[in-house]
Amino acid sequence: MSGCPYFEKRLFKSKSPETEEEEDASQAGVNKASKGGIIYGDYLQLDKILSAQVLQSELKGDKIHDEHLFIVTHQAFELWFKQILFELDSVRNIFISGHVRDERNMLKVNNRIHRMVRIFRLLVEQFTVLETMTALDFFDFREYLAPASGFQSLQFRLLENKIGVPDNLRVPYNRRHHRDNFKGQESKTLLASEQEPTLLKLVEEWLERTPGLEADGFNFWERLGINIFKGLNQEKVKIEKMADSEDKEELMAELGKQKELFTSLFDEKRHEHLFSKGERRISYKALQGALMINFYREEPRFQVPFQLLTSLMDIDTLMTKWRYNHVCMVHRMIGSKAGTGGSSGYHYLRSTVSDRYKVFVDLFNLATFLVPRHWVPKLNPNVHKFLYMAECCDSSYCSSEDSD
Amino acid sequence: MSGCPYFEKRLFKSKSPETEEEEDASQAGVNKASKGGIIYGDYLQLDKILSAQVLQSELKGDKIHDEHLFIVTHQAFELWFKQILFELDSVRNIFISGHVRDERNMLKVNNRIHRMVRIFRLLVEQFTVLETMTALDFFDFREYLAPASGFQSLQFRLLENKIGVPDNLRVPYNRRHHRDNFKGQESKTLLASEQEPTLLKLVEEWLERTPGLEADGFNFWERLGINIFKGLNQEKVKIEKMADSEDKEELMAELGKQKELFTSLFDEKRHEHLFSKGERRISYKALQGALMINFYREEPRFQVPFQLLTSLMDIDTLMTKWRYNHVCMVHRMIGSKAGTGGSSGYHYLRSTVSDRYKVFVDLFNLATFLVPRHWVPKLNPNVHKFLYMAECCDSSYCSSEDSD
Amino acid sequence: MSGCPYFEKRLFKSKSPETEEEEDASQAGVNKASKGGIIYGDYLQLDKILSAQVLQSELKGDKIHDEHLFIVTHQAFELWFKQILFELDSVRNIFISGHVRDERNMLKVNNRIHRMVRIFRLLVEQFTVLETMTALDFFDFREYLAPASGFQSLQFRLLENKIGVPDNLRVPYNRRHHRDNFKGQESKTLLASEQEPTLLKLVEEWLERTPGLEADGFNFWERLGINIFKGLNQEKVKIEKMADSEDKEELMAELGKQKELFTSLFDEKRHEHLFSKGERRISYKALQGALMINFYREEPRFQVPFQLLTSLMDIDTLMTKWRYNHVCMVHRMIGSKAGTGGSSGYHYLRSTVSDRYKVFVDLFNLATFLVPRHWVPKLNPNVHKFLYMAECCDSSYCSSEDSD
Amino acid sequence: MSGCPYFEKRLFKSKSPETEEEEDASQAGVNKASKGGIIYGDYLQLDKILSAQVLQSELKGDKIHDEHLFIVTHQAFELWFKQILFELDSVRNIFISGHVRDERNMLKVNNRIHRMVRIFRLLVEQFTVLETMTALDFFDFREYLAPASGFQSLQFRLLENKIGVPDNLRVPYNRRHHRDNFKGQESKTLLASEQEPTLLKLVEEWLERTPGLEADGFNFWERLGINIFKGLNQEKVKIEKMADSEDKEELMAELGKQKELFTSLFDEKRHEHLFSKGERRISYKALQGALMINFYREEPRFQVPFQLLTSLMDIDTLMTKWRYNHVCMVHRMIGSKAGTGGSSGYHYLRSTVSDRYKVFVDLFNLATFLVPRHWVPKLNPNVHKFLYMAECCDSSYCSSEDSD
Repeated sequence: MSGCPYFEKRLFKSKSPETEEEEDASQAGVNKASKGGIIYGDYLQLDKILSAQVLQSELKGDKIHDEHLFIVTHQAFELWFKQILFELDSVRNIFISGHVRDERNMLKVNNRIHRMVRIFRLLVEQFTVLETMTALDFFDFREYLAPASGFQSLQFRLLENKIGVPDNLRVPYNRRHHRDNFKGQESKTLLASEQEPTLLKLVEEWLERTPGLEADGFNFWERLGINIFKGLNQEKVKIEKMADSEDKEELMAELGKQKELFTSLFDEKRHEHLFSKGERRISYKALQGALMINFYREEPRFQVPFQLLTSLMDIDTLMTKWRYNHVCMVHRMIGSKAGTGGSSGYHYLRSTVSDRYKVFVDLFNLATFLVPRHWVPKLNPNVHKFLYMAECCDSSYCSSEDSD
Repeated sequence: MSGCPYFEKRLFKSKSPETEEEEDASQAGVNKASKGGIIYGDYLQLDKILSAQVLQSELKGDKIHDEHLFIVTHQAFELWFKQILFELDSVRNIFISGHVRDERNMLKVNNRIHRMVRIFRLLVEQFTVLETMTALDFFDFREYLAPASGFQSLQFRLLENKIGVPDNLRVPYNRRHHRDNFKGQESKTLLASEQEPTLLKLVEEWLERTPGLEADGFNFWERLGINIFKGLNQEKVKIEKMADSEDKEELMAELGKQKELFTSLFDEKRHEHLFSKGERRISYKALQGALMINFYREEPRFQVPFQLLTSLMDIDTLMTKWRYNHVCMVHRMIGSKAGTGGSSGYHYLRSTVSDRYKVFVDLFNLATFLVPRHWVPKLNPNVHKFLYMAECCDSSYCSSEDSD
Repeated sequence: MSGCPYFEKRLFKSKSPETEEEEDASQAGVNKASKGGIIYGDYLQLDKILSAQVLQSELKGDKIHDEHLFIVTHQAFELWFKQILFELDSVRNIFISGHVRDERNMLKVNNRIHRMVRIFRLLVEQFTVLETMTALDFFDFREYLAPASGFQSLQFRLLENKIGVPDNLRVPYNRRHHRDNFKGQESKTLLASEQEPTLLKLVEEWLERTPGLEADGFNFWERLGINIFKGLNQEKVKIEKMADSEDKEELMAELGKQKELFTSLFDEKRHEHLFSKGERRISYKALQGALMINFYREEPRFQVPFQLLTSLMDIDTLMTKWRYNHVCMVHRMIGSKAGTGGSSGYHYLRSTVSDRYKVFVDLFNLATFLVPRHWVPKLNPNVHKFLYMAECCDSSYCSSEDSD
Repeated sequence: MSGCPYFEKRLFKSKSPETEEEEDASQAGVNKASKGGIIYGDYLQLDKILSAQVLQSELKGDKIHDEHLFIVTHQAFELWFKQILFELDSVRNIFISGHVRDERNMLKVNNRIHRMVRIFRLLVEQFTVLETMTALDFFDFREYLAPASGFQSLQFRLLENKIGVPDNLRVPYNRRHHRDNFKGQESKTLLASEQEPTLLKLVEEWLERTPGLEADGFNFWERLGINIFKGLNQEKVKIEKMADSEDKEELMAELGKQKELFTSLFDEKRHEHLFSKGERRISYKALQGALMINFYREEPRFQVPFQLLTSLMDIDTLMTKWRYNHVCMVHRMIGSKAGTGGSSGYHYLRSTVSDRYKVFVDLFNLATFLVPRHWVPKLNPNVHKFLYMAECCDSSYCSSEDSD
């Protein structure tokens, strides 16, 4: 920004030129730059960015001041959506390409997901600016916008699809599928996004590979099950020894519920049933991996994976907060119109602030299945040293030869 | 945004059609809209906004992921700068046109200045996103940006000029005037902005007209001076009656300083001297108006003016916070390079986080001149009802006839 | 804070001493202070504040690090709740005492409500700190807290009551009235708060007195009704002249809905019906006042009242955002426990993020009743100058004589 | 908070009872809890917290409304300072005890430092609440506070000391050592804190142990030096081949500076010199470790250490932002009093917003020493698998036997 000396001339090039010709070309670039290369406004294409605010009210001969804010705010939202999609696509590609098997790439995955979190946090905050526009200010130009609608934001739909909002859990909009709002290329892009692997799906596959789940290895799941039911039985014995009392009854009832809960956890058929209803969204094996990462989060091997699971919940939470802030603003701008029929805009939006739109709901529900630390199967000392695979996806970093 | 039903078809038009022909035209507009008028992406010109991210590193055949964030963040800054300038220009126009004399327009002025405050608050927050880029990430594409520099942000310079950062107090950049960084039309635009009345100047003129300052009327300044020196003398008498002690000496010394302080306040020549040095930036009369608004802020006539003065301080504060957050980020990105010579980027920026760049510094310093409430000249009951002038600047609101 | 020179010795006293004895006493105070009066830690009673963190887990011999954060966060919430209640009570007192009739006090009312807004904003943000605790961290000490529950926060219930969350719209908690969670003095305090006038009620009374509503004066309501139905009829005539088309039908249908909407607005019986169902919460007259303030918000007389209405919506919005952030955190800490029976904690909290808990819902719904500006009855020039009453509630400011 | 079902009865105990007697005792605890154990208000000691707001102005018979906010805000600051100190001490203990050698504890260290970051972020935000108090509001009760001063905040001084603000770089306050402001036990506590190992010191020791620095092992520093000077020489050869031009001269000059920069980096005596002047604050070996972590941050072994270094910079940055926000608020409350002598409060505080108060300044300055990725010595594949030591500091987690 102002006076930012980011851009000073530098000597280094990130790749070693292989021939003298290439060297000259690269140096030529530097020369050109130093003489009058790209400048700030061109670099950022400000001619496009800053000429894109066309007020419909002004076109209709009735310029309304606040329409400018309305446009700029929505453009800022879309700009950031583009950045979020950029990060999301890059993360999905690391997963899809299998580069995630190289643990070195986990930092990258984690940082980019975390960056999405920070952007969402900013976007939630961004509503405070639009809130300086009152219902009356909005009313003055609202009619000129028809039939444009935020529902037509392609990027937001792509974002939902690529993260993994399930199509069948969406609230219909005016009884129509949301894709019907888009035409031509946009409709195709949207359809394509529904057929790509979602972040949810990719995380699921990654979780299924959690080291320690192998039946012929550490066999986490079986060991955990044994420990839990042993622990519950010990509790039962203790309670039975107590003198009869209301407390004893309560404890026994509570124990019964716990047993039921954990019995359901270790029942794969039950999982499939919940999965089919959309109450669980990841496979049984992935659920096991997620629980394992939670229990062993302090192991060096699992520290960054654990952070990733936390950030995924952050994204879910922030997307619902974004929706909720949006609803609050709409309520203020157009009221709830309760009982007047017509547009159910506020009520439609209200209905999307729902757990149905949460993608990583299983990660939240892990909290239901926590147990005392001493019930968690203990790792062998040698298991503390899970092997790291080293298949590198960052070509410029890996393919270059060591220079000494 | 998503599913936002802002844009539904409406019946109302904001102006009464005067002939039947015009009526039909306006209705035709509605028809067209309902059939396939403007849609969201076109309205926001997303083709421009979302195609403006061209990575220099990619052009040079070495695509660096984080350059995308760098571009989007700066574009978002520029987008919001445009909105701030839009609000600032509109406020300046209300002042310039004299419409501010109609008190009804004070709400508008106040709201728009307050909106600028909210946007600045968001922009300060926005650095948290860019902070997810590390120095190493930045290093990877930094060379491709030369010689572009944030110092070339035209809008930021315009903003400084139009608010009123004084040219002669600016820190030179590499020993050159900041305008030398701009060429052609940009240079002309910048020069023009230096010749327009600044917000500071306009606020100063408005303050000079504060009702109650009239020498032949309430004569606030003279009455205040009389009260203050009477009060100080009464204090002196009290202290003199005390038994000799260290306390007495301290109180007397403090009283001396107070007397000196207020003597300087009522000394117009002293004001002119401080003004010439840039330590005061508004006229003597305007200073009186500002102090009057502070003391009588609860009077209905002064409630909104008082809010305005507060918001102006908010803008000053937030601009320096923005500068400071910027400095902190640059420090992290490129270090301080202490002692290595070459670019003094960090140190240059550091030097702009200075009171020299504060515009409404006089409003802050009013805190130095507060006195006990009972020293403030009391208003006559009829002065509680300062007259409101009603010269309206909002033509669509005012020119239309009452419809009954 | 650190090095804050707030507290230097001052000469001024805020009241004129009336006798020499009183003078000496006041000076004695100053003397004492200068010698070794109150110091920072004593002033803030840090011995109490900083000794109040007792970890139950530590008492039980199993100190869990994160319990400290849990305690401090909740204490910070309660500290700020106390401040909010302090502001709320002061505002309610200004209304109750009738001091609000002096327009000078509107700044005070407005600032204090605005301060509540700022605090709520901070409290929403405060969850980001508690979110650094994971479900597993919480699990480690959760058992030691029973049966303490945030549901037992007296101050939060007082806040809800005093703002005006209606008792009959509350979601029952485990099928019991929320007051059953409190005993002894707390229960009495809570009951008392239910019998005091709520902020909602006080604002309602104030709105009913909006100048311009007088049937024998400006008679806003009648004039507005006339204008609206005249306007709708003119629309109808225009549409009827159009050639038959789908559009014409749509427009006619939309017009029908608008007519129905406004007919209901001007139907007092309809209002009483909605009021009895809790869908409207303020009287018919107050609704008229609120709409009047919205339409004439630029009039000097209505600028600050309009800001007040906006801040009241802010409070409503922020309280629901607080609830929602709370729900999100609880979801993460304990999961939804869907289907396992037992505590329905998450689901209970989820149900309170509801418009039923919004207090100033009528202010939001005003957006439904907006009309084109030229339909709004025009004020006579002399009406621009509504009289200000000047009955002052700030005794130290008003009772002291003018000192000259 | 409200209705938070955190606290429900649980069965599990975190330690296995070893005798039947202990079992009964633990169950008795549960029983008691279910009958009427600790409740919310007692748990949080709200009797202390909420009774600690005593207004000096009220004691002096002149109750000023805004003093309540002043007290609550400062108490909230102190409450959070206590939490920060609690986290800081726990982190320092992990380092001091050597537990940090077990990589499993790095997650804990990282999370707690990150929690400090979040709290600081909140505290910076917290000034927005106090800013609702105007200079005039403050003036009304300011005199009653003397001689209390934020400079007397023991916790803030402890925090500075324990993180590592060096005593000899502090700005003196009124020409006195800051410890002179404290007496008795506080003075002793402060002195003790100056003699404990600071976070800076502990991080330094930890950095010195960075695996890969061993001269008889990977020998990072020597290899890096060789690569860098080889790289610079290759650049020189390339530039020399260019035709004479202004560009060539510029490039050569820039190359000269780079060579000088890196020569100084590899000059241990130069480091000692800068260290003695306070321009560097960590040992030469620690600097090497920090640079190594930066270059290899994607290695699994260094991912969490790299995050830690980032968080340490966050803390530095946020502490200076806190100082700066504080200064801005003080400027608004009491003005700058430029030229009037007396208290230099504003100017004193202004001077502490300085890099002298930055603790981890070396981490920022690493940005100066970045080089192209292909200059960084390449790790052998087996070095990708740095060994993890497993000496566990979390006794309840480690000492318990595996339950199967």
